Amino acid sequence: MSTRAFTFLGGEKGAFRVTRLTAIAGATLPSISRIAVVPGIVPVGDERPRWFLRGTTSNDRYVTRAEKERLVARSPDLGRPGATSAALIPIRKSAAWWALTQDERRNVLEEQSHHIEIGLRYLPAVARRLHHCRDLGSDEPFDFLTWFEFAPSDEKAFDELVADLRRSPEWRYVEREVDVRLVREER
Amino acid sequence: MSTRAFTFLGGEKGAFRVTRLTAIAGATLPSISRIAVVPGIVPVGDERPRWFLRGTTSNDRYVTRAEKERLVARSPDLGRPGATSAALIPIRKSAAWWALTQDERRNVLEEQSHHIEIGLRYLPAVARRLHHCRDLGSDEPFDFLTWFEFAPSDEKAFDELVADLRRSPEWRYVEREVDVRLVREER
Repeated sequence: MSTRAFTFLGGEKGAFRVTRLTAIAGATLPSISRIAVVPGIVPVGDERPRWFLRGTTSNDRYVTRAEKERLVARSPDLGRPGATSAALIPIRKSAAWWALTQDERRNVLEEQSHHIEIGLRYLPAVARRLHHCRDLGSDEPFDFLTWFEFAPSDEKAFDELVADLRRSPEWRYVEREVDVRLVREER
Repeated sequence: MSTRAFTFLGGEKGAFRVTRLTAIAGATLPSISRIAVVPGIVPVGDERPRWFLRGTTSNDRYVTRAEKERLVARSPDLGRPGATSAALIPIRKSAAWWALTQDERRNVLEEQSHHIEIGLRYLPAVARRLHHCRDLGSDEPFDFLTWFEFAPSDEKAFDELVADLRRSPEWRYVEREVDVRLVREER
C-alpha cells in the first residue's frame, strides 16, 4: 500500500467534525457529520461511509526551484497541536484546462493568477497537502483534493486565501469545487 | 471504468506474441510468451497472468504548444493494419528525477536530451501511447509504460530511436527499464 495515497471517508465517523459544507461550483457532496482521513486507497465496504474521495501526493507540477525552496522553508507539517481547524476542498478542472500544454497551464496558474505567490503569503499559518485523483486509473469525481490545517484564529486569513484564488483567472477552469470546513476532535 | 487506463497482462494469452524480452537497466520481468492489452484497471485473478502492469494516459507534462501541434499533426493512431510490430517499454526513474522541479525536468528532457525532437524524427512511422503508473495510488513497479507500434520494416529505425534516447542525459535518471518486443497475431 502506497504511503503517498490517502482516502477521505465522509460519514458519521472520524476525527474531523464538519462545521460547514458549501458547494462553490458544480454539484455539492451529500452532507455528512464527520470525515476520517485514512492512509492508502482503502477498501471502504465495512466502513459504510456516505461518500469517499481518494488521491495521492505526487511530485510538484508547477513550482520553480526558487519557489520550491521558499515553500519548503516556510511550510509547516500537518498535525500541529494548535491547528485544530481544517478544510477539505476537492476541485475538478475543465477539459479546457487539461487540453492546455504545461507552459500554458503554468502561465495561467502563476504568471496570471499568482497561485504560488498567494499561497506563500499564508505560510506558515496554513499547512497544506495536495492529493491528485486524476491519474488513479478510475473515474474519480474530482481532479484534486486539497487539505488544509490552521489555528481557529487563522480562519479569517484562510477565507481570504481561498477568496483570492477564486477571483483569479485560474478559477475560470474550475468546474466543480466543494468547501468542507472541519474541526479536529480526538475521540 | 476509466477509458484512459490500460492493463498489460503478461502470460500465455493475448494478441501480442513476445519475440524478445531484454532488461536494459535494473531487474528484468519474468519471461512470458504473450501479452494481452486490456482497457481499464482490470481484475486479473481469473486471467492468471504471470505478471501485469497498468497505467493511465494523461495530460501532457512537458511539450510546448508548438511541439504539441507538430506531434498531433504527425502522430498516427494505434492499430494500423501494417504496423504489426510492437514494443512495451516500462521505465522507472530515480528519486533524484522526481525531486527535480518541473522546469528542471523539462530542461533535462528536452533542452539537454532532445527527447521530443528525437521522437518527432520517427513520426509517422512509430505510433506511441504513454501510460503513467506513478500516481495510481498503489506501489507500482514502474513509473511509465510506453507502448509503440510500427511496421516490421521500421524495426531498425525504432532501434535507433531507443538507442538515441538511452544515450541522452535524461537516461541517467532511468533506474529500471525492460524492452519487450512483440508481434501482433490475431487469433
